[in-house]
Amino acid sequence: MAVKTIYFDNGVVKLIDQTKLPGELVYIDCESKEDIWRAIKVMQIRGAPAIGIAAGFGVALGMRDFKGSSYNGFVKELENVMSYLFKARPTAVNLPWALNRMKKVVINNAKKEIGYLKELLIKEAIAILDEDMEICRRMAGFGAQFIRPDSNILTHCNAGGLATADYGTALGVLFCAKEKGKKFHVYVDETRPVLQGARLTSWELMQQDIPCTLICDNMAAGLMKQGKIDLVIVGADRIAGNGDTANKIGTYSLACLAHLHKIPFYVAAPKSTFDLDKKDGNSIPIEERNSEEVTHIRGASIAPKEVKVYNPAFDITPAEYITAFVTEKGIIKPPYSENIPLKLG
Amino acid sequence: MAVKTIYFDNGVVKLIDQTKLPGELVYIDCESKEDIWRAIKVMQIRGAPAIGIAAGFGVALGMRDFKGSSYNGFVKELENVMSYLFKARPTAVNLPWALNRMKKVVINNAKKEIGYLKELLIKEAIAILDEDMEICRRMAGFGAQFIRPDSNILTHCNAGGLATADYGTALGVLFCAKEKGKKFHVYVDETRPVLQGARLTSWELMQQDIPCTLICDNMAAGLMKQGKIDLVIVGADRIAGNGDTANKIGTYSLACLAHLHKIPFYVAAPKSTFDLDKKDGNSIPIEERNSEEVTHIRGASIAPKEVKVYNPAFDITPAEYITAFVTEKGIIKPPYSENIPLKLG
Repeated sequence: MAVKTIYFDNGVVKLIDQTKLPGELVYIDCESKEDIWRAIKVMQIRGAPAIGIAAGFGVALGMRDFKGSSYNGFVKELENVMSYLFKARPTAVNLPWALNRMKKVVINNAKKEIGYLKELLIKEAIAILDEDMEICRRMAGFGAQFIRPDSNILTHCNAGGLATADYGTALGVLFCAKEKGKKFHVYVDETRPVLQGARLTSWELMQQDIPCTLICDNMAAGLMKQGKIDLVIVGADRIAGNGDTANKIGTYSLACLAHLHKIPFYVAAPKSTFDLDKKDGNSIPIEERNSEEVTHIRGASIAPKEVKVYNPAFDITPAEYITAFVTEKGIIKPPYSENIPLKLG
Repeated sequence: MAVKTIYFDNGVVKLIDQTKLPGELVYIDCESKEDIWRAIKVMQIRGAPAIGIAAGFGVALGMRDFKGSSYNGFVKELENVMSYLFKARPTAVNLPWALNRMKKVVINNAKKEIGYLKELLIKEAIAILDEDMEICRRMAGFGAQFIRPDSNILTHCNAGGLATADYGTALGVLFCAKEKGKKFHVYVDETRPVLQGARLTSWELMQQDIPCTLICDNMAAGLMKQGKIDLVIVGADRIAGNGDTANKIGTYSLACLAHLHKIPFYVAAPKSTFDLDKKDGNSIPIEERNSEEVTHIRGASIAPKEVKVYNPAFDITPAEYITAFVTEKGIIKPPYSENIPLKLG
């Protein structure tokens, strides 16, 4: 892949400001936990795996600023940094997953020297980043089997290189299929309100010379009825133990439509997106974002002032509408309540 | 209702430039068939009944410019004007319906004096306008029975005063229910790509003090799953003899979702929107519009340059997903192939 979404260079986290795409490809420097928090909050970086990677660096940068010298003080500050970063966005479980993984490094190296712990945290954040590259490619290798020659794929939001370190979950599957020489075409849901499909996914596919067509979200059903969609594949922000899946708002709508039109519906996500502590989708927190995301586009108003807005960033797709999960551990098929813990537990 | 969408004043057709709403409420003057054609084409006026009204005036204005003195020459020019206006937009059948109604005036007054025919055409266009006001109110009276107290209604696109002379089809039903003292709440689909819901429907509802909440089109399914939608009501652009209905893109998606969630789905439309010459929805022409409607919003680019776009302006909802039609002749229930001709034939 051409573009790294996020990397660590000379003590600084560099990440693409995705709010500027596709107009400008600009990297911003993050040098503190506050920089990382803001980048996650305003969606300069987004996508569950990429949020996890950023959060890992957020901990490393936050603890690098620790001034004390006691291990207990270090752990106490770690808790503060974690709970600060935890609040950036609530739905993607990769964020707390990464925070907890960072914490384990400190716990497993109790009483070590502070400077050494700081170095270990930087190393762990880099490890999360490097592993993501590997995980996405392994996942893609399993998922590519579902992409039949000359098929039409529909995807929603952006589950590409920009949602991960550099390769993608759902789009990784497509990149891998392309690398294997398969020819296919992708319909890209623009994905209101933040337009990740229009801005990011079509940009990534065009960069890889994969034929694609941009549609508004409400056009997918008509295409399905015309037999023009053979398969839907999306990423995920959090998957409960029974397979219920939180993903970008509009995913549930697509899953309903795929179900009604008897079209297979796949979710590609790494193990870190599964939250086996959640029995089902009902207990997954759904972020509601500000109304300006809906009422303004690129700064221009598209609705009456004072209009009331409902703007959930995610919805829950019930497990029964999901044909299979694509993970780095292989394909997971129903019954999910048995097979998810079996494969990932 | 406060606002007239289109009216005739001192030889000039005045219509609201709906592309400027909700920011500005501006009337433009149409003094020729070309002015009317352009207003329809670029959607300064839109909505099937309003397009029909505008087309009637287009004929009247076009024939007012006729320079000859022979009846045969008048009829020949009438055919030219009709085929010119016919091409403005293909899907709403109210356009050819109005053209044919205007033609009948000329045919029924064969060999009359040219000046008299010109006056008759102006009168007929005004009659179409006046009848629309009456028809919408009658339709609304029938439809209001479906609006239960404290219910949540979902609507798509704009089927309000702005889609008709001044009252609306689907929104007319809501206005009437409000006038009868019913309390309810409306979720408004923003309706990409042209955002008629965000720009026009929420504006109309707020003007009438009807509580409403704007959502992106892809959020409707999640609301349905949460039990927050009791009823869907939309307008129509063309209804085939079997009840298959062409309406704004995204309507079919909503109908699928309503069907899956067992939510009643109503279509409100006047007799002039029914096209009994079409056996079913397969033969209804679907307009595809330019890609800039999708890639640019209020002038700002939201997608990569050169991205391929699919932009159908309408889709077809099959009759079996429609609970009932609300018309000025009363409610029409299945079986539609029998009941539509019975009620409207």
